[in-house]
Amino acid sequence: MKATVLFSGGKDSGLVTLLLEPFFDEIELVTFSFGREESWRPAAQAAKEIGHPHRVAIFPNEVREEALTMLRAAGHPAPALNYVHSIAVEALAQEAEFVADGTRRDDRAPVMSYGRIRSLEDRRKMHYLRPLAGLGGGAIRAMAARHLDFVEELSEMFPASDFEVGLRHALAERWGQAEVDRIFPADHTHTRVIRRKRFVKEVEGQEDQACQSISTES
Amino acid sequence: MKATVLFSGGKDSGLVTLLLEPFFDEIELVTFSFGREESWRPAAQAAKEIGHPHRVAIFPNEVREEALTMLRAAGHPAPALNYVHSIAVEALAQEAEFVADGTRRDDRAPVMSYGRIRSLEDRRKMHYLRPLAGLGGGAIRAMAARHLDFVEELSEMFPASDFEVGLRHALAERWGQAEVDRIFPADHTHTRVIRRKRFVKEVEGQEDQACQSISTES
Repeated sequence: MKATVLFSGGKDSGLVTLLLEPFFDEIELVTFSFGREESWRPAAQAAKEIGHPHRVAIFPNEVREEALTMLRAAGHPAPALNYVHSIAVEALAQEAEFVADGTRRDDRAPVMSYGRIRSLEDRRKMHYLRPLAGLGGGAIRAMAARHLDFVEELSEMFPASDFEVGLRHALAERWGQAEVDRIFPADHTHTRVIRRKRFVKEVEGQEDQACQSISTES
Repeated sequence: MKATVLFSGGKDSGLVTLLLEPFFDEIELVTFSFGREESWRPAAQAAKEIGHPHRVAIFPNEVREEALTMLRAAGHPAPALNYVHSIAVEALAQEAEFVADGTRRDDRAPVMSYGRIRSLEDRRKMHYLRPLAGLGGGAIRAMAARHLDFVEELSEMFPASDFEVGLRHALAERWGQAEVDRIFPADHTHTRVIRRKRFVKEVEGQEDQACQSISTES
């Protein structure tokens, strides 16, 4: 079984990858980009650290334009975030049986309604996995920190591959920082995985059971 | 870090245990019982197979009586299931920092509202984890089957430790099968883990990275 993970290079999609790893023979990490060349590079580096194949998918120009129009019309980011997220999930659902993302219990956007999820799964004969949908922010941070070193960065200063950061940069390029400040909350940060601390090896049967809770922390 | 898992011995709470295992130093499995001595035995056996410490907690008599009253008054199981589930989660939340259960995305009951979850976490300074909250039934079955052998059993014929099975048995003892048939859907089944197929060993750093996707299937 193969799982495809919508991957930004941050701690959330990193944790999703680690959660799914023992249950799939193969995991592919896919980063969507609005076409700014540098924005996917941190995600590619994070994927290399975590140790799974990675590729970049570029949104069509119309998707970027539609998202920018939605941002400016709504004056807040939720509709555009939901739109680009659903485009990405639908694209992956056409080619993969298991598609996962890092959307969290406490996120207001992007989020797909229950009805929309069931429709997606029925139409595409696939499974959409949200492993963080039942976890709060504190638990996610604690669980991710056990296996990953990550840094928190100001989104205005550093390119990154999460949808919010991509939309902020696209908006700033076209209409300047004032328009970003009108639409998005101030001081948005994103996380970036810089190192994987532990790897996991599967063993058959019980003979190696004593190892399962070995801690490698000093 | 230690996680406490509300454990019925079925594939769902079994999968929760496997999902959390790489992220915690210690996992304790706790089965709640309505006092029928035999109902927790399959869960204890499943816990032994999965390889984590297990204990049984008995609901106070008043909780069982209140649940039975709710069942007969509502004529359907949801309010009573929500009630006993919340009693169990609240009890574990008093003693553990991370409490997990196997409630699923597609379950209608038991389920705790988002507001209630946030209140629980704030009051008790703990994290309530629902690792299956973003997974559909087909994905849960496929992921559990990779690591666990489990059987599906008719709840009327076999004792088990899930709340619905416990309530059905308590109701049948007191008022007979006709009252169970009035309140619960027909032919309810539960799953029971009978074997763990794979164990996991953590290794530090990348040197053993090639092992991470080794399949032990023939």
